[in-house]
Order: sequence, then C-alpha cells, then structure tokens
Amino acid sequence: MIENRLKQIKMVLLDVDGVLTSGEIIYSDSGDQIKIFDVKDGVGIRLLKEAGIKVGIITGRKGRALHHRCQNLGIDVVFDGIRNKDQALEKIAALTGIDAQAIAFVGDDLPDLPVMKRVGLAVAVADAHEIIRQRAHIVTRAKGGRGAVREISETILKTQGVWDDLIRRLFDG
Amino acid sequence: MIENRLKQIKMVLLDVDGVLTSGEIIYSDSGDQIKIFDVKDGVGIRLLKEAGIKVGIITGRKGRALHHRCQNLGIDVVFDGIRNKDQALEKIAALTGIDAQAIAFVGDDLPDLPVMKRVGLAVAVADAHEIIRQRAHIVTRAKGGRGAVREISETILKTQGVWDDLIRRLFDG
Amino acid sequence: MIENRLKQIKMVLLDVDGVLTSGEIIYSDSGDQIKIFDVKDGVGIRLLKEAGIKVGIITGRKGRALHHRCQNLGIDVVFDGIRNKDQALEKIAALTGIDAQAIAFVGDDLPDLPVMKRVGLAVAVADAHEIIRQRAHIVTRAKGGRGAVREISETILKTQGVWDDLIRRLFDG
Amino acid sequence: MIENRLKQIKMVLLDVDGVLTSGEIIYSDSGDQIKIFDVKDGVGIRLLKEAGIKVGIITGRKGRALHHRCQNLGIDVVFDGIRNKDQALEKIAALTGIDAQAIAFVGDDLPDLPVMKRVGLAVAVADAHEIIRQRAHIVTRAKGGRGAVREISETILKTQGVWDDLIRRLFDG
Repeated sequence: MIENRLKQIKMVLLDVDGVLTSGEIIYSDSGDQIKIFDVKDGVGIRLLKEAGIKVGIITGRKGRALHHRCQNLGIDVVFDGIRNKDQALEKIAALTGIDAQAIAFVGDDLPDLPVMKRVGLAVAVADAHEIIRQRAHIVTRAKGGRGAVREISETILKTQGVWDDLIRRLFDG
Repeated sequence: MIENRLKQIKMVLLDVDGVLTSGEIIYSDSGDQIKIFDVKDGVGIRLLKEAGIKVGIITGRKGRALHHRCQNLGIDVVFDGIRNKDQALEKIAALTGIDAQAIAFVGDDLPDLPVMKRVGLAVAVADAHEIIRQRAHIVTRAKGGRGAVREISETILKTQGVWDDLIRRLFDG
Repeated sequence: MIENRLKQIKMVLLDVDGVLTSGEIIYSDSGDQIKIFDVKDGVGIRLLKEAGIKVGIITGRKGRALHHRCQNLGIDVVFDGIRNKDQALEKIAALTGIDAQAIAFVGDDLPDLPVMKRVGLAVAVADAHEIIRQRAHIVTRAKGGRGAVREISETILKTQGVWDDLIRRLFDG
Repeated sequence: MIENRLKQIKMVLLDVDGVLTSGEIIYSDSGDQIKIFDVKDGVGIRLLKEAGIKVGIITGRKGRALHHRCQNLGIDVVFDGIRNKDQALEKIAALTGIDAQAIAFVGDDLPDLPVMKRVGLAVAVADAHEIIRQRAHIVTRAKGGRGAVREISETILKTQGVWDDLIRRLFDG
C-alpha cells in the first residue's frame, strides 16, 4: 500500500534535470551552464530536513550551478556525473545506513528506471516519460521544476503525521 | 470590508521570489544568480509611487540582481536576507511611520504567513501556496512574476479613486 | 478601414519589452541584463525588409543586449532610453521622410499610448494591457515575444499583395 | 507511405532554433548568447546513436553555446551559419555516403523548406509555421524545445523495431 511506503521514508533522493528543474539544459557561449530551480521546491526540502528526513541528489550530469543550489539548500549528499544510478543508490544506502525500502526517489526519464526499481517509493513527476509514470508508485500532479518536489515533500510529511505541527512551529506560531 | 482595507493603503511591501518573479531560482556555474522580473509589474510600481504610495521589499534571500532591479524601479526600502519577515515589517513601520494597517503585503508561500497576519491588506498571488491563498484578504488573478504586482497596484489605485487622473496625466494627455 | 491602413504601411516601429520579448526583465548579479527574443519574429522582420518596409525600435529602456539583437537583424533605427515615445516618433518620421500615417507601431502597455494615437496603424499584442488593446486598430492573436511581430509582419505583407512572391523567391523556388 | 519513410532512416538532421530550442534567441549585454535545450531531447539523440542512426545539425545561426551542447551529446556533424540549407544537405549526404531518402530533417520555419523538400522524411514540430506543417510528412505532437526531437526519435526507433531491445539493454536489464 502506498500509505505504508510513504510512512517509512527516511530519505528522499532527487534526480535534477526534469525533476528539480523543468528539464532545461542551458549553455552560454562561454560553456558555462545555468540551472533554473523552483523556490517552492526549496521550501519543501527545508521542511523535509526540519522533520529529520534526509535529502540527496543523484544525477547523470555534472555542473557547478547545481552545487551552488545544493549548498544554498543544505543538501549534503550529492552524487553527480553518475552513469549507473543504481550503484549510486547502493553507495548512499551504505553511507547513511538507510535501507533502500526507506528511500524515496523522484525521477522523470529512462535513466532513472534502474534506481526506481530498487527504492521503497518510486515517484514520477507529472511530465515524466510514459514508461517512468507507469513504473512509479506515485505520479505528482505538479511538473518537474514546477513544484513536483514540494508536492511529494508535503505528501510524505502529511502521511507521517508531522505536517501540522511543523507548520505551526515554523510559520504560524 | 476589503474596499476599506484597499482605501487605507499607504505602502505596498513585496516578497520577491514567486511574487516579483515566477519563483525561478537561477544559478550559473560561477555562482552568480539571475532574476527574471516582469516589465508590467515595473509600470505598476511606478504608478504607485506617482500616487504617493511607498513600495518596499521583504525577502528571505540575498542577491545583487534584486538590487539592480530595485534601483531601476526606484524602490528604496529593501530588506533582504530576512529570517523573520514580521520583524522586518515592524522595522519598516517604525522607519516610515506608517501603521501596519496601512500596509499591504504580497506573498506566495509559508514564510510570508507571519507578516501577512499583521498587515492591513494581505495579498496572495494566484499561484501562491494553498494555505497562503486561504489566509489572504485578496488573491490576484495573475500569477507571481506574471503581472500579480501590476494587478494589485491597479486595484489599490482604482479603489482610492486616483487611477483615471493618473493615466490621463501620464499617458493620455 | 483596417485594410487601407495596412496597405499604406512603409515602416514598422516596435516597442521592445512585452512586444519583441514576453516582458521579462532579466538581471544577473553583475548588473548585466539579458533579453529573450523570438526566432520567428526575426524571420518576420527580415521578410518586411526584403519587401522594402523599414523596421525600427522605440523603447523606454536602455541596454546593450537589445543592440546585439538589432545588429543581428539589421535594424538600423533604434531609439532607446526614450521618455516620450511620441517625440521619438516625430524624429523618426522627420529622419526617414515617412509620414506617421504610413507607420505601424506595435505596443503592449500604457507608455505606448501616446505614439499609438499618432500612427496610421496601432497594433497591440494579445497580452497587451486592456487599455492598449481597446485603443489599437489591430490586436494580434500571438503574445509579445511569442510571434506577435511575425504575425503582424505577415498580415502587412499579405494585405499589400507581396507575400506569395516573396516566399516563392526566397524559400520555395 | 510514412511507415516506409520512417523505416529507411539512417540519419536525422536537426534545425536548432525552434526545434532543439523553443525558438528563444537570448543575448546578454556582453553580446554572448545563451541557448536553452531540453534534457529529454538529449536522451532521444543518445538512443538514436545507440541504434546506429547518425545525428547532425543544420542551422542558419552561429554560436558557441550550440557547440557546447553538441559536444555534450556527441553530435559530430554540425553545419552552422548556413544560408542555403539544401546545399548543406548535399554536402552532408556526400560526406556520410547516406542518400537523402534515408535522411530525416526536423524543421520549424520557412528557411527549412528547401531542405525539407529534398529529404526522405520531412518532420515539422507542433508549433512550426503553418506552411512548414503543411509540407511535412509528419508533425510532432510536442513543440520545439519541448520534446519534439525525443518524440520523432522514439517514432523512428519503434517503427524500425529496435525500441524494446534498446530500452531493455540500456535501462531495464
């Protein structure tokens, strides 16, 4: 049952392009890259961390723009330039001592499939590839880079019964 | 009554990400940030100032791109890097001598809640978080970064009965 | 009659923000600005020039990004940093010897109103301010920065009866 | 028959602006250009190459940002700054020894027409100019820069009967 999968999550792993961004790969003439993230996703990640849930990144691409955003959000587990995402998952599980069944992964395209098959909660963004949506436990209503990470964060926190207290403590005291 | 709240406004305070922008947090590889504002919002801010209504900024983030835009628009009260937005509100009220009941604040997400509860007119943009929309006195039809600030500016100026003269004097003489 | 207005056009003048762009005002931390134009508008401008119709710019803002695009498109009449757009119109009419009745202007917001009242063909983009749409002779179906300039270019060339020959000569020989 | 055209494709040639991007021409004040590509298109191009289908570029514009993306994707045939796209097509056919009937070209606007008339499979993106959509053998459901290249890549690979094995081998083993 999906509710049980949501309840056991201790870590959320995120793909970057198409999940934390809307999939735009942006190059300038100088070869520098630019990445466009979403401010509401950032609040979602902070709420997860406030609730004691770890947040990490597994992405096939490399780039300093991502690291600036991760530093800004306090994400410490960043695996980039990854060819085999399922191997990265194993390393992260070993590193953190968190079982794959307690890990959620949010993906959008075929290279995410191997890791989605191994985690306890496989999440597809609304505009993920058809195959990814079919294989996911949950498909978000929001698109990648347009609130998908915020949405799954709230779903996890609400299912785990910590949402109301968190909001009251942080914003509505 | 909303009309009374609109009539007494002497200052408009704005969140930045998700209000003056559509919520895009943009990093380049160099760590520099980029911000995307809306030209029509800029005209709205200029119209407020022409009518003697002050305009200020309260934002949780820091960044020079924002200051370039504020300078361009002649916004002089800029509180950035703010953790507790309600404390910033108190400082601004003290600084300007304007009572919180005569201040409008435009927000989009949970960190805006404390200040929205204290001002005379709490405005949510169309794509604000559900909780923010529920708590606002007014929800704009336009989204953040897509004309929301322009819309509330016109609503204030029309309710205060200065719109027609302003347009005639500036553009249609 | 609109058809007569379209037939007599010898020059097309364009606002920039909200017309040649979708109205995004983009600053980087360094203070440099970025402008996003549309490739299809560029083809429209080239087609106007091929048909002997002049193309110029009147904009309230200043910035080198605009000049790079204008150079790229071969637009030689660029009036930027303009406070009174109707004065710029008079200068351009004097400079080129083209009567205001043979000039089309494409605008989107209140600062465009004075010049729209003086030209032979006032064009509003689909997402122009309500007042601008009401005062225009034509409202494009396309939005600013999303093909509005291309659309009015084709409308002018077709009404003047030169479209078919132009396409055959340039692309379909 | 379209199916026969799809089956014989050995090379896919792509226009850039409006096909690999959504048509945004982006200048910074420094004169540098920025290009926004789509991550899902990148996966499509990699799948074509894995299946032994060559991928190349024919574009009217020049710019280093494009070359950074092409290098990233392993596209080796890049003809940029091209005035007559049909001449570039002839050169590419001669260079690779691939007959024009075995080449697909994806375009969006009038300058693409001469080459679309000569290739075995002329593809228009969903938001291509009306004339281009009428002359194409296939119109994608996705817009340029929003998955059009990914869509035609999958259509080719599925029609050629190699899709299932490819996905199983690469992502679902």
